Amino acid sequence: MRFFSDNAASVHPKVWDALKGADAPDAAYDGDALSARLDAAFSELFGVECAALWVATGTAANCLALAALCPPHGGVLCHREAHIEVDEGGAPGFYTHGAKLMLVDGEGAKVCPQALAAAIDPIRNDVHQVQPQALSITQATEYGRVYTPAEIAALAAFAEERKLGLHIDGARFANAVAHLGCAPIEACRGAATLSFGCVKNGGMNAETLVLFDPALAGLVKYRRKRAGHLQSKGRFAAAQVLAMLERGLWLDNARAANSAAQEIAQACGERLLHPVEANEIFVALSPAEAAALRGQGFDFYDWPAPPGHPGAARLVTSWNSDPAHVVALARAIRGL
Amino acid sequence: MRFFSDNAASVHPKVWDALKGADAPDAAYDGDALSARLDAAFSELFGVECAALWVATGTAANCLALAALCPPHGGVLCHREAHIEVDEGGAPGFYTHGAKLMLVDGEGAKVCPQALAAAIDPIRNDVHQVQPQALSITQATEYGRVYTPAEIAALAAFAEERKLGLHIDGARFANAVAHLGCAPIEACRGAATLSFGCVKNGGMNAETLVLFDPALAGLVKYRRKRAGHLQSKGRFAAAQVLAMLERGLWLDNARAANSAAQEIAQACGERLLHPVEANEIFVALSPAEAAALRGQGFDFYDWPAPPGHPGAARLVTSWNSDPAHVVALARAIRGL
Amino acid sequence: MRFFSDNAASVHPKVWDALKGADAPDAAYDGDALSARLDAAFSELFGVECAALWVATGTAANCLALAALCPPHGGVLCHREAHIEVDEGGAPGFYTHGAKLMLVDGEGAKVCPQALAAAIDPIRNDVHQVQPQALSITQATEYGRVYTPAEIAALAAFAEERKLGLHIDGARFANAVAHLGCAPIEACRGAATLSFGCVKNGGMNAETLVLFDPALAGLVKYRRKRAGHLQSKGRFAAAQVLAMLERGLWLDNARAANSAAQEIAQACGERLLHPVEANEIFVALSPAEAAALRGQGFDFYDWPAPPGHPGAARLVTSWNSDPAHVVALARAIRGL
Amino acid sequence: MRFFSDNAASVHPKVWDALKGADAPDAAYDGDALSARLDAAFSELFGVECAALWVATGTAANCLALAALCPPHGGVLCHREAHIEVDEGGAPGFYTHGAKLMLVDGEGAKVCPQALAAAIDPIRNDVHQVQPQALSITQATEYGRVYTPAEIAALAAFAEERKLGLHIDGARFANAVAHLGCAPIEACRGAATLSFGCVKNGGMNAETLVLFDPALAGLVKYRRKRAGHLQSKGRFAAAQVLAMLERGLWLDNARAANSAAQEIAQACGERLLHPVEANEIFVALSPAEAAALRGQGFDFYDWPAPPGHPGAARLVTSWNSDPAHVVALARAIRGL
Repeated sequence: MRFFSDNAASVHPKVWDALKGADAPDAAYDGDALSARLDAAFSELFGVECAALWVATGTAANCLALAALCPPHGGVLCHREAHIEVDEGGAPGFYTHGAKLMLVDGEGAKVCPQALAAAIDPIRNDVHQVQPQALSITQATEYGRVYTPAEIAALAAFAEERKLGLHIDGARFANAVAHLGCAPIEACRGAATLSFGCVKNGGMNAETLVLFDPALAGLVKYRRKRAGHLQSKGRFAAAQVLAMLERGLWLDNARAANSAAQEIAQACGERLLHPVEANEIFVALSPAEAAALRGQGFDFYDWPAPPGHPGAARLVTSWNSDPAHVVALARAIRGL
Repeated sequence: MRFFSDNAASVHPKVWDALKGADAPDAAYDGDALSARLDAAFSELFGVECAALWVATGTAANCLALAALCPPHGGVLCHREAHIEVDEGGAPGFYTHGAKLMLVDGEGAKVCPQALAAAIDPIRNDVHQVQPQALSITQATEYGRVYTPAEIAALAAFAEERKLGLHIDGARFANAVAHLGCAPIEACRGAATLSFGCVKNGGMNAETLVLFDPALAGLVKYRRKRAGHLQSKGRFAAAQVLAMLERGLWLDNARAANSAAQEIAQACGERLLHPVEANEIFVALSPAEAAALRGQGFDFYDWPAPPGHPGAARLVTSWNSDPAHVVALARAIRGL
Repeated sequence: MRFFSDNAASVHPKVWDALKGADAPDAAYDGDALSARLDAAFSELFGVECAALWVATGTAANCLALAALCPPHGGVLCHREAHIEVDEGGAPGFYTHGAKLMLVDGEGAKVCPQALAAAIDPIRNDVHQVQPQALSITQATEYGRVYTPAEIAALAAFAEERKLGLHIDGARFANAVAHLGCAPIEACRGAATLSFGCVKNGGMNAETLVLFDPALAGLVKYRRKRAGHLQSKGRFAAAQVLAMLERGLWLDNARAANSAAQEIAQACGERLLHPVEANEIFVALSPAEAAALRGQGFDFYDWPAPPGHPGAARLVTSWNSDPAHVVALARAIRGL
Repeated sequence: MRFFSDNAASVHPKVWDALKGADAPDAAYDGDALSARLDAAFSELFGVECAALWVATGTAANCLALAALCPPHGGVLCHREAHIEVDEGGAPGFYTHGAKLMLVDGEGAKVCPQALAAAIDPIRNDVHQVQPQALSITQATEYGRVYTPAEIAALAAFAEERKLGLHIDGARFANAVAHLGCAPIEACRGAATLSFGCVKNGGMNAETLVLFDPALAGLVKYRRKRAGHLQSKGRFAAAQVLAMLERGLWLDNARAANSAAQEIAQACGERLLHPVEANEIFVALSPAEAAALRGQGFDFYDWPAPPGHPGAARLVTSWNSDPAHVVALARAIRGL
């Protein structure tokens, strides 16, 4: 019973159907009919004109975005535990040609304007110090927390005031929107760029980089090719993304994962280290308790123990978490 | 009737089967059972110990290899019409952090030790001039020409003597081996790295970077992640590649494409601009003749006209070129 | 008797005076009174508003300029024998983060719009091919040739039409202007950036990067610091440059060097491989003749022999070439 | 009365003499007789074989060193207030092609093995996380603190155990050695590279990068050229450095600066924020007190106020701080 991560889950049947449906030859790269539909599909989804490019990974989507928003000699503000800082193997440094990540703290991997201002106000406006030029946030965050539309608006206003391009890492954007129940644009309004996750949500190997300033697309398309991310049979990437958007599959999948997470969260009570808003549950768990759960067949990652706890774990649900497994895990946690 | 390129062809049924067979969750990234089999599979294929990493595109495979073989301040020798020079959007400059491509001429996009020596002998061994550190060749070349084992051996000897790491862009390596009828290692012996093509040969979106010095794998794995090319559901990439190797599917597919190309080549006679050794046919074709063929339903790319010809075209066959289309094209060309 | 190069000559007495005059402490970096005068001094010299930054070397000046004009995924057109291509150790690749130099031929290391058009017209306007974004020419060229104002105007018009930022490597710009006898701006009108040489013309270790679009200065100042080229006692760099401009010392020095070169050129007759317009003389010289000259105490570099000649040499005069040495060399050449 | 910084002080008369003495032409770049003496001069100074290269700035020296010790995908440990992190405009990111600076805390900008271990022990040894590959410390630190030989030895042992290349930013290395009174090697033993400061200590515009593994010199010389830091009249850089080493001028100058700092420190008493070990004095100073000092003609930088203090200032002495000014400042501080 796997609660490791959503990033290795099976591919949704409708995505499989879309892949098979794309098998007939079409123009190579992104010249095919499916790729040509992406801009319109995302413009409709968000209700604003935007451009949308498929790439194979979230790391590529994030870093192409950062490179479009921040010059090599600039800095990108982000949370100290942001995926781009902690888990992308230095890819931001590669794609931006050496720009600096500027780290900010905040509960649940969320950042707020106050913390951002505190971080950058002391930076002298001279050539000796790297100047912040972009802000990257994660929606939902690395701890499964969700920015409300009001919080997004405040961050967007801050970014605009400080002339920072705003990027949103939306590896689990669907989970955030499913939690908020708002129009998708409300969960990201003001962003210049958004990595719209698909792989963790039932896709195979396609993510989407959404550019709310379509004029960025020219630049980013050159950079995508230059990064070796322009696949020749791009129609298979487009097909996955379009399948996700069709009839709201992306939201259905996210709701299923969120719902499973809520069920487990109910069982965790005081153990919860963060409010559960998306599909990740962080719980205090002693080594003995973790062993007990594993002994019952549950797989999950250990997590660094927070102060005052002997241990912790991360549990992640996915679009197709088996209801029986979820029930069993909830019961097992209650039984600890 | 499409003779545009092999890079947009359909996916082979056995690859589809392998993809479906990989759907069950497994460890993420390259921690899955399928990815774990790649080193052994390629070591067996080549009869020498090697490491093998999947990536999404040939550009990524080539450029990860070049970056492993050439430092940022070095140079990479290649043909003036090499794909890395002409068609990868500057990706070598990105991945190598600014190394220089050093261009060499040669018939049919082939290079030889004499031309290479002529290019680098005048380079002073001082810090003012970029020093060559790697050599990249394409097997089969961008004009569908194939290096014989003896030619490969001569180039490998030259590379060793000059302390150049040898990379082979094998986007159509299968077609080269199918043409040569030799052991695969004979078509690349002496190379440090090989981009082993799969996408043009019936795959969906996975290529393989083969490292004949397995010690390079540590470095390249970090660089692959840093380039955003470590997919989380990597098992789907591994599955494609393994399906290709199984029971020689890669060679069967290449033989089919080569055979179709031969059939067309027979019909071209004096029109042929290059000997046809793989699955590409370059023919002299006047604009009127090209229009005539297109009028009969044949699609293909125009090519820059060589001196003395009013026009030219590139015809490419693929693993599943329809025999009827091939026959029809051959007949149409004869009828011009 | 040294005719190796002008790049190791002594420092002019007035430059020494200026250096000593700058010894008293002032604000660090470029905050001092001397550095603050550069913009105005060059604006006056050229009769147009510009910004001017000192750097230690011509390579740094050239490459900071190229990085300001060309993005990492773009290309820079230049002559095949341009200093940036041949003798800067790959610095353009470093500063531009991997942009490509696109090589063009032309007599005497000069380029013309026709050759440039021929080089870039075949480039497809798609993401697979690197797009040219800048043009770099050398005034005077690596073979001591000078672009006339009309030629500069034609190149500037071409650059504007093709949306190429125009950079001029003016390591020997003074020699060019001295030859032309025109207003300095006429020798570079239309350029976005100019490396204004000082070191070869009697300076110690300061060159100037002139930005004809002063808005570029903000960017370039950050890049200069980031490249480790912002010296803390920048007043010594500014002092050298200002001394050069004062009362036309830069032109006096260049005229002296050009005049010495003319005297030698007169003696060379049929041996001349290029018209002598600045302070470099390229002559056909057999190995025996070269040895004979060296036997008489003349030092110079051998040069690759052009077709039909058994050998060649480069002779360079400088601002303080000893008239007696010049006379002696001219006599020696006549006596061969 | 300037106590801003030592980085804008006048040039020492013996350095001027050496500069003048180097005026006669010699081979260009680093082919001259003076540059050729650097390796031996530093090998003698340190009692171990090393290579030594001049560069124009400390930023260039530091960053060339980091790029030699850390690959683009690696990380460099340093103090959170290290000059490379705070004041070099992102140059480390440029020179290393995007490597990450990993920040560590410590009193007085000093780091210790415990803090370093705490920073890197949690880093998983997988491709998702940047791996530390180098350690950079500053001797004396940005707060004028000096590592003892025992502390250096402990850091070197840690670096060796963790396979980290050890770099020392020695912009004020002379001040550290003058304070320690030890053999120079004891202040840096175990380092792979050392930026040996000269500019702040009476030089004009030359620093030295010392490579304790002379085999690194080949690489670094290419990188120096590639960074535009190979000056054509390099003999003037070498002359400055050699003048510094001759008869211990570097230590005499540092002792003078340290001594002046001690005199001021005596007057500061409880105001001192850090022990004064080199030539920098950090003092608590209210805005009114700062204004009072400035009113008496003393110039210095404000510094961020530490907790519990209304304000702070940095006072820096230099090799030629006027004794009368020093006495006056000490008296003025006592009189506050």
